[in-house]
Amino acid sequence: MIDLGADGAARNSGGGLADDEIARAWAYLSRVAEPPCPALTDLVLRCGPVEAAARVRAGAVGAALLEHVQARRHIDCAAEDLDVLQRLGGRLVTMGDAEWPVLAFRAFDGAPQRLERMGSRAHPPLVLWVTGPVRLDEITARAAAIVGTRAATAYGEHVAADLAAGLVARDAAVVSGGAFGVDGAAHRAALAAGGPTVAVLAGGIDVPYPAGHTSLLRRIGEEGLVVSEYPPGERPARHRFLTRNRLVAALAGATVVVEAGARSGAANTAAWSRALGRPVCAVPGPVTSAASVGCHALLRAGAQLVTRAEDIVELIGRMGEFAPEEQRPTTVLDGLAEIEQRVYDALPARAARTADEIAVAAGLPATAILGPLAVLELSGLVTAHAGRWQRVRR
Amino acid sequence: MIDLGADGAARNSGGGLADDEIARAWAYLSRVAEPPCPALTDLVLRCGPVEAAARVRAGAVGAALLEHVQARRHIDCAAEDLDVLQRLGGRLVTMGDAEWPVLAFRAFDGAPQRLERMGSRAHPPLVLWVTGPVRLDEITARAAAIVGTRAATAYGEHVAADLAAGLVARDAAVVSGGAFGVDGAAHRAALAAGGPTVAVLAGGIDVPYPAGHTSLLRRIGEEGLVVSEYPPGERPARHRFLTRNRLVAALAGATVVVEAGARSGAANTAAWSRALGRPVCAVPGPVTSAASVGCHALLRAGAQLVTRAEDIVELIGRMGEFAPEEQRPTTVLDGLAEIEQRVYDALPARAARTADEIAVAAGLPATAILGPLAVLELSGLVTAHAGRWQRVRR
Repeated sequence: MIDLGADGAARNSGGGLADDEIARAWAYLSRVAEPPCPALTDLVLRCGPVEAAARVRAGAVGAALLEHVQARRHIDCAAEDLDVLQRLGGRLVTMGDAEWPVLAFRAFDGAPQRLERMGSRAHPPLVLWVTGPVRLDEITARAAAIVGTRAATAYGEHVAADLAAGLVARDAAVVSGGAFGVDGAAHRAALAAGGPTVAVLAGGIDVPYPAGHTSLLRRIGEEGLVVSEYPPGERPARHRFLTRNRLVAALAGATVVVEAGARSGAANTAAWSRALGRPVCAVPGPVTSAASVGCHALLRAGAQLVTRAEDIVELIGRMGEFAPEEQRPTTVLDGLAEIEQRVYDALPARAARTADEIAVAAGLPATAILGPLAVLELSGLVTAHAGRWQRVRR
Repeated sequence: MIDLGADGAARNSGGGLADDEIARAWAYLSRVAEPPCPALTDLVLRCGPVEAAARVRAGAVGAALLEHVQARRHIDCAAEDLDVLQRLGGRLVTMGDAEWPVLAFRAFDGAPQRLERMGSRAHPPLVLWVTGPVRLDEITARAAAIVGTRAATAYGEHVAADLAAGLVARDAAVVSGGAFGVDGAAHRAALAAGGPTVAVLAGGIDVPYPAGHTSLLRRIGEEGLVVSEYPPGERPARHRFLTRNRLVAALAGATVVVEAGARSGAANTAAWSRALGRPVCAVPGPVTSAASVGCHALLRAGAQLVTRAEDIVELIGRMGEFAPEEQRPTTVLDGLAEIEQRVYDALPARAARTADEIAVAAGLPATAILGPLAVLELSGLVTAHAGRWQRVRR
């Protein structure tokens, strides 16, 4: 594979190209076809971004690719786009960069039939427009997506926040879509816990969506990462949310759906996660809540039931990191064998009984109850006095 | 196999035995060994109840059985027990009776390793003490167990009642253990819906337990069935609840756990259901609720997630009875192909656009969008006027 980093592209193009020319090529390519466009990616892999941009601009590409770029190949606002990016303090992350999350996107090379069912979107992005002080490849090495309905209940927002804070406490990042409801609760809790969170947008990184999350997204861009495969100024559209969802799933080691109605974009993100071979998790909720219907459908379809951040960390965590057992209250009586239990039960709550009386009550021969009585006495559960046994009050 | 009905036993014993002598034999046998006692069942199968009772009374049985009957074989309060039964208007149901639920108990003949894990209790009962106007074999042919914690929340009681009423409305009976919490809510809702319900007790049918459910159990005995394998006067004991749970599971086509804490008898009933080869179901709840922890553990272990009575009826129902699909709200846009969706999205909410403008916005060649635009126009989603397309306001 050719080296597509800044200097690599320069080498491939014969040397002497300035970094900004390469950046302008990437920016042009990012806008010229609706992502993902695997034919365009193939061209870039063959001849580098500068040469690829030149050929596309000239229409000197095969018919299949031409169909995807024909409508926009005369539009070039790469310089303006890069100005916007610079003003935001952001960067273009591309295939050859050290920050490119190679491992996250390797899943797109997985089982073809599983991915084919997801339609023409089942390809990695060409470039990512990114703002934020965190490295994308590092953060995605240990991250979970927390997603769900915009119409979250108080329960859903509480659980989303709880899981997100728990992930951050365990050194994992929280990926989500920046939407109202579950997404917002997860982002906010991750920030509040002082941990990294990644918002993947369905429009340009300079187009805060929803508008009500403008300040939240600004904060994510300052402390975590705001990521998009769409160039600046592009508005989110219905089909772009579906395209975006694949990135949410791809950038996370597992996807957790906290609340989802019968129809929810979260189910689509979960489908991407499954298609990419990543664990799909769902949080159960009251069966009386419409906001949990989608989660229960996912659980029926084989999603993993999660109730705690530990459950998620086990799925995305380093090898050998397992969730601790949930604590179960126990009593001394739990340790008893069946026959000891039966003998103990045969004693009344307070009164003392002879061995024969105990034998009748237990339905056991008198010879068979002496052993169990001794065990119970050693366990401090019964006391013997003058040939009669009695329960120890607890 | 010998005929163990009233007259059958008479034939096997040489004829001339009165019905009440046979009944007294069953009653004696019911008390002489702590149930279940497969060695005693074997003896009765070999020589009938009257002869079996005589041999046990005389101690003329093998050493293995003698161990189980030695402590109580001199106790005979069969006549008094039958008096109590008669006063309650009840009956003894035994292996040879038409009412004996042969199909329900056939599960005990199932996979031995699955049952062996459940310990020495994995055997059918010898006799059942029953009050109520319903036939046990008929009611168990279409029944589900609704069980759960005594410490149910308002949510758990609501769901238990909702499922029980839904089962009754679908001609299915509700089996439970008569306890506070989930059990009581299920019984009550079944009665309120005018349907049959079965309470299986861990003590005698004349010992209402818990005492607070005395009037509820009386009503169940008048309109449904109260069932126990323990003779009158016997008090429930801890180990007897575990023994009783196997009957709850066996008398139902499926067991549904509505709410259960980390430690709950309901999990034991679910284990019996699984060991008997019957479906185990659990109702999800808030992950913030301690009363749902056991349900979530069961779901993780492979229990079926149920949210509606229809889900349960599908599991216990007659062949070919399937739950209707849950209704999903749909919009016209759902029926669109991916490319039509993309073209529709490329139109702004109100303004009209030329085909070229739409092509640029959609990132598709102009020739490729005319077909989708025609489909959208036919679907009533867009209108064309003077070479410009516009969304139809919905």
